[in-house]
Amino acid sequence: MYSIGVDIGGTNVKIGLIDDSLAIAQRISIPFPHTTPEDMVAKIRRGVEAILAQQGISMTELASVGAIVPGSVSRDDTTVIDAYNLGFHNVPLKKLLQDVFPECPVYITNDADGAALAELAGGAFRNAQSGILLTLGTGLGGGIILNGKLFRGGTGQGCELGHAFLVYGGEHCTCGNDGCMETYVSASALIRDGIAAMTAHPESSLAAAAKGNPENVTARLVIDCARTGDPSAVQVFDTYVDRLGAVCASFFNILDPEVIAIGGGVCGAGDFLFEPLRKKTDSKCFYPTHGAIVPAEMGNDAGMIGAAMLHRNAEG
Amino acid sequence: MYSIGVDIGGTNVKIGLIDDSLAIAQRISIPFPHTTPEDMVAKIRRGVEAILAQQGISMTELASVGAIVPGSVSRDDTTVIDAYNLGFHNVPLKKLLQDVFPECPVYITNDADGAALAELAGGAFRNAQSGILLTLGTGLGGGIILNGKLFRGGTGQGCELGHAFLVYGGEHCTCGNDGCMETYVSASALIRDGIAAMTAHPESSLAAAAKGNPENVTARLVIDCARTGDPSAVQVFDTYVDRLGAVCASFFNILDPEVIAIGGGVCGAGDFLFEPLRKKTDSKCFYPTHGAIVPAEMGNDAGMIGAAMLHRNAEG
Repeated sequence: MYSIGVDIGGTNVKIGLIDDSLAIAQRISIPFPHTTPEDMVAKIRRGVEAILAQQGISMTELASVGAIVPGSVSRDDTTVIDAYNLGFHNVPLKKLLQDVFPECPVYITNDADGAALAELAGGAFRNAQSGILLTLGTGLGGGIILNGKLFRGGTGQGCELGHAFLVYGGEHCTCGNDGCMETYVSASALIRDGIAAMTAHPESSLAAAAKGNPENVTARLVIDCARTGDPSAVQVFDTYVDRLGAVCASFFNILDPEVIAIGGGVCGAGDFLFEPLRKKTDSKCFYPTHGAIVPAEMGNDAGMIGAAMLHRNAEG
Repeated sequence: MYSIGVDIGGTNVKIGLIDDSLAIAQRISIPFPHTTPEDMVAKIRRGVEAILAQQGISMTELASVGAIVPGSVSRDDTTVIDAYNLGFHNVPLKKLLQDVFPECPVYITNDADGAALAELAGGAFRNAQSGILLTLGTGLGGGIILNGKLFRGGTGQGCELGHAFLVYGGEHCTCGNDGCMETYVSASALIRDGIAAMTAHPESSLAAAAKGNPENVTARLVIDCARTGDPSAVQVFDTYVDRLGAVCASFFNILDPEVIAIGGGVCGAGDFLFEPLRKKTDSKCFYPTHGAIVPAEMGNDAGMIGAAMLHRNAEG
């Protein structure tokens, strides 16, 4: 059985034909933006038709067409309320997709939930009934799996894990609050603190590597300089890991998940991140026994694969 | 149908015969401690026999015997791992109770979960499928209802809501961490800050009312002085409410519950607490629409009633 997964992003719309083993049988990418949401779904239809024609599969053989968007989705899973990167506000995306795909069930959700579902289907949560995915990027995205299903909040509005407080009254967040988790553990936070360290320590390897230019400071650069032992970068990275450990401990204490999976480019640091992170988290958790902390496994295609698996989540 | 609810506390063991409408048909209280857990369950058996004899009910007519303890319970709901107030460590309480109550099903859980279950059965969560109970006392206790059932954590270990971080690096907590929610929003935190305000402002009404003696500072006194407009007490109370609003916002952002219910003596403040609390929470939540914040309704008998309802939670 095949499903279509569509990852609608601000730059591209990625479309994949996914089989039951989660393999991507074929994929295409079409540029975003489009003139209208109607234009976009028409292009998605043509893209899917092209893929199916090449694979010799008919539309009625699809289990579903699922799509994810970077934004908030209504409680009834029909409407994109706000997806700022797409310029979508109150767009009835499910109906628009269903209109162009009358042959099969259509599902939509947000990108973080899609990624969590992909980890459940075949990644870090595949042997678990509960898990929390934390994606460290510009912000802190997150998705929750409970009882083997996507948990979209008690009212269905969705979970905004990045906007729980870590340091109430601390760093200002784009949401308007001060001290949200994402202001301390997103990749942006690591870069911000790296730039501050570079400025304070022009003699550091970090400053030399960035040529004193804040625009050259990336999460990877801070991590690489910390790995070589540059004291300024080490301090920034250790502080970052400690805060990420506090975030993981908060989620273990609140929801006691079997697994916390960490995604995003920062995870490229591998054991250099995960070994101290596990120790820091251990020292902060209420119970000495708690779930595992592992890297997310599904990578850049997580959202597209999760979108294709939405029909499984909707079933029983 | 009747059930027995047993609230095992550090001072007394309360036993109640509860009917389907959650009314307490009869109750007794027997003093704790006991020489051994075996002695305690034998006394519970005799207490239940006395109640049933007076009510003309036979043991086989009971739907269940449920008990709650102030401590951690094993993932399989059989063993009290640590209940420091009782001196119970690795006590196989379910088996001990089942041995003396062979006639009916036996259940155990911790006190915070019992209280949340009571709110679900007939209190603040009765019309909800999801809710979070926050009990403001010496610490911050909490229980979670999801999908109309008690949620005991992804691994079944339990949820320690009071030990999620609010101000990472802030006030020291008994758990060993710095900045847990409970160090800012427990009744103890309000008292601590009241004592500090009294000391800093010996001219305040708060200091006069407490006669300058820290031992006279209670949560109620701080609230009463704030209500009369004493600037020192007002500042302490406003700060407290703001922090409690941040805690509520964190839980709305993470789990999106239909209801957050607040229990504990602090709630005696009524609208003086709840009106500003709702405004503070509104201003901090990610989504403009979110669940309600209401007082818990089940009071001091919540645990006993919840214990009697554990059989309902175990069913379907």
